[in-house]
Amino acid sequence: MVESWVNSAERIGADLLLELSGPGGRRAALIRALREAVRGGRLAPGTRLPPYRSLAADLGVARNTVADAYAELVAEGWLTARQGSGTRVADRAEPLRRAARVAGGVAGRVAGQAPPGERDPLHDLRQGTPDASSFPRAAWLTSYRRALQQAPSEVFGPGDPAGRRELREALAEYLARARGVRTVPERIVICSGFAHALRLLFGRSGSTGAGGDARGENNVGGARGGGVLRGPLAVEAYGLGFHRELLAAAGVRTVPVPLDEAGARVDLLGRERGVLLTPAHQFPTGGPLHASRRAAVIDWARARGAVVVEDDYDGEFRYDRKPVGAVQGLDPERVIHVGSVSKSLSPALRLGWMVLPERYVGGVLAAKGEREAWVSLLDQLSLADFIASGAYDRHVRRMRQRYRRRRDRLVEVLAGHAPHVEVTGVAAGLHAVLRLPPGTERSTVEAAARRGVALDGLAAFRHPRTAMEAGDGLVVGYATPSEHAYAAALEALCGVLAPGGPRSPGIGTAADPATGGTAE
Amino acid sequence: MVESWVNSAERIGADLLLELSGPGGRRAALIRALREAVRGGRLAPGTRLPPYRSLAADLGVARNTVADAYAELVAEGWLTARQGSGTRVADRAEPLRRAARVAGGVAGRVAGQAPPGERDPLHDLRQGTPDASSFPRAAWLTSYRRALQQAPSEVFGPGDPAGRRELREALAEYLARARGVRTVPERIVICSGFAHALRLLFGRSGSTGAGGDARGENNVGGARGGGVLRGPLAVEAYGLGFHRELLAAAGVRTVPVPLDEAGARVDLLGRERGVLLTPAHQFPTGGPLHASRRAAVIDWARARGAVVVEDDYDGEFRYDRKPVGAVQGLDPERVIHVGSVSKSLSPALRLGWMVLPERYVGGVLAAKGEREAWVSLLDQLSLADFIASGAYDRHVRRMRQRYRRRRDRLVEVLAGHAPHVEVTGVAAGLHAVLRLPPGTERSTVEAAARRGVALDGLAAFRHPRTAMEAGDGLVVGYATPSEHAYAAALEALCGVLAPGGPRSPGIGTAADPATGGTAE
Repeated sequence: MVESWVNSAERIGADLLLELSGPGGRRAALIRALREAVRGGRLAPGTRLPPYRSLAADLGVARNTVADAYAELVAEGWLTARQGSGTRVADRAEPLRRAARVAGGVAGRVAGQAPPGERDPLHDLRQGTPDASSFPRAAWLTSYRRALQQAPSEVFGPGDPAGRRELREALAEYLARARGVRTVPERIVICSGFAHALRLLFGRSGSTGAGGDARGENNVGGARGGGVLRGPLAVEAYGLGFHRELLAAAGVRTVPVPLDEAGARVDLLGRERGVLLTPAHQFPTGGPLHASRRAAVIDWARARGAVVVEDDYDGEFRYDRKPVGAVQGLDPERVIHVGSVSKSLSPALRLGWMVLPERYVGGVLAAKGEREAWVSLLDQLSLADFIASGAYDRHVRRMRQRYRRRRDRLVEVLAGHAPHVEVTGVAAGLHAVLRLPPGTERSTVEAAARRGVALDGLAAFRHPRTAMEAGDGLVVGYATPSEHAYAAALEALCGVLAPGGPRSPGIGTAADPATGGTAE
Repeated sequence: MVESWVNSAERIGADLLLELSGPGGRRAALIRALREAVRGGRLAPGTRLPPYRSLAADLGVARNTVADAYAELVAEGWLTARQGSGTRVADRAEPLRRAARVAGGVAGRVAGQAPPGERDPLHDLRQGTPDASSFPRAAWLTSYRRALQQAPSEVFGPGDPAGRRELREALAEYLARARGVRTVPERIVICSGFAHALRLLFGRSGSTGAGGDARGENNVGGARGGGVLRGPLAVEAYGLGFHRELLAAAGVRTVPVPLDEAGARVDLLGRERGVLLTPAHQFPTGGPLHASRRAAVIDWARARGAVVVEDDYDGEFRYDRKPVGAVQGLDPERVIHVGSVSKSLSPALRLGWMVLPERYVGGVLAAKGEREAWVSLLDQLSLADFIASGAYDRHVRRMRQRYRRRRDRLVEVLAGHAPHVEVTGVAAGLHAVLRLPPGTERSTVEAAARRGVALDGLAAFRHPRTAMEAGDGLVVGYATPSEHAYAAALEALCGVLAPGGPRSPGIGTAADPATGGTAE
């Protein structure tokens, strides 16, 4: 388009190349060019701009075009116009430094919460993630399309903080059938995952600090930041540090409960106001909560007026038998059951649910806010369709078979190549714990890292105030690699664990159990 | 399938109808039937169950089937098995009361945060929501499909808390072009909306209360609950009570800044650490922040080391001129710019963004957590595609024309039927403020409600500690109704406002400006 040297050095103190190009006509182009000149420092703060008439003549545009452009930039604050002193570059605008991204500002990695930037080891066996390459794209798109096309208009307005009724109905049916959960849609609240559920349950109540300032305000709902429960909260002596820290940040004291072969020692519970458990498959050590303990924890909660928070993070995945039902079914008024699609489908969807005792429903909804502020309503409808259409069951079944094969292969390969390493815990979930000889955990994790195998040691999950010692072990997320990458990951792991150190044991592929050949 | 009376009253104390039907074979059916019998109270706690052999004979199933079913229910905690005393119904399980939903537990409605359950007045003119019936379903589905089909597998794994790079790049380009925002993708953090942004910026830092308990924990990231900024924070004397309350709950004292015809009196700012502004279109009073004030607030922030939080909630919608650029462009190191699709597309998507000064990026990411815990990565990719493909611009353009017509019609109709009511504020956004004679606001809002017209008075937005008095007025969300419902809503509004009270003024339709006929 038009280019012109605005050569009026005696007035603006600098030569200025205005490139009147780009979309939107001369006026828009002039505004952009002047703005860029100010931004870039070519027009310094305080500089006086040429009168409309002069610049218009220089650029070959109408005088009004220049006047409009100046007015716009005055309105935006780039220029100032004062009677008598003409139009000048405003005092502010400095050129933008193009900053390198400060990566999280986080020191150190939390086990199970690896920043994605670090998620590119050669072999990723960190727990916590399903096989990302197996997301059922076609089936999910079918549900999303149907949800989008069939949604009533009101879906695109403000949403009910409880979540879409369609989803809560689908979940009530599914959870009863698949997890033995006893509930009704009115007691389900949709959330973005387990961490969100913890925040809604334990978030600070605003009653401390400068909270007195809130007087005179209508102290309603979503503003509160959550908190229907209070500490102290008993937690398993081994678990996700991320959860403990989230609770600590909410002012909740966590009390570690030791584990034995029957699961959490709920017989040791005392005056805590609640207990956070992973009954189906203790995370990370891998055992289920024994039936007598399941009963005992309900008895304790009833006697104490306490509550059980059930983190049912991988309850669908049991390989040696049908999944054991949720503890929630034993007493829906004493157990808060929390689940999500993060292990069954993908953590990318940010879809989870809380099944609540009646008395907490109002408080959790108030903590969540008067409108759905978190979870896409379209995604909620899509998941409702995905469950109701049977696609969810089909996907879980398919992944159950796949992960079961992977676990079997892990056991088999280790038996052959590292017989001193025992795979413990029940055949379930997306991870296994490998027992190591005492004193070797740390060096093994480090040796693995050197060979490009990312995984965590048991120590990474230990409550800092527990007296319990679970011994040395590796937490192996066998679900994490893609199907084609699993055999190589197993091989690399064996290379680390095999007696005599690194070598290539010939693992074969997990995807095709029939293939047993050596890899080299 | 099989039905049988298990008539063994001397052992289990009750007749029990077991319906061995439904999917999954005899064993599963028996488990379900027994579980339901316990749940429903037909098998009372403590009841002794028949031996395997007896029940198996009664039901005509294999003995092992009964043994398996009992074992399952023992594992789930419904039954207990002790050597010598047989299998009994556990002491817990009570029948579930089917509770009525406790609707939010919230007393009173926050202006602009109406619970959806209340959102069914005859005519909804509450502000805050775009026309839900105009969501671009086909175009959004196109972007979603493309995003889903083209996404690399890693999308379905844990996500970067900053948000997908694709979206941050699309936003950096769009915001520069449409809003005059100066930034780079590295300084953008995706969030679920403005309330989420406030929580990330001001959330409590775990350093108070029981925070000492966190010692020994690796006090990392997402656990913290946010908080890169502290109060006191200046806010506009009229604004969303929801935001003030959210801040109060986070322990942030808000200091009201009065408004005049040039916008917020930023010349009155003092020792506050920041100021929250709606510069493009003051919410709710409707004026833009004057150019001199824009400059002044940047000067104040620089001099004080303070920060400006710019709530650019409806910046795309200006009808009388091109939108004024964002204040952020004046000094990207002093302004946090926050936007979302909640007004431009739909609040159902839960997609927003923060454009941050460099020094806050690390802290906000740490507050958000080490992984994306909130916003669907697929939705992020879809929005990136929607923006990059031009669909977003097209939709905004279309809605701008539509809302402009509605606003023009509102002005026109009121001029004809309620000339004493002035429409104030610039021609922008999704709402207008109608000035009322002194002392009539409350009675007018009530009269409107009686006639099925839902809207808010200005008083609903007033900071409880401001000395400023904006006078009487109605906040009319002309964007809220669907296109076909708008004419009737306007007519009803006129019926409330017209001198001499309710009557039918003959409003015509907004959808077709050519139609000026009477409605009766």
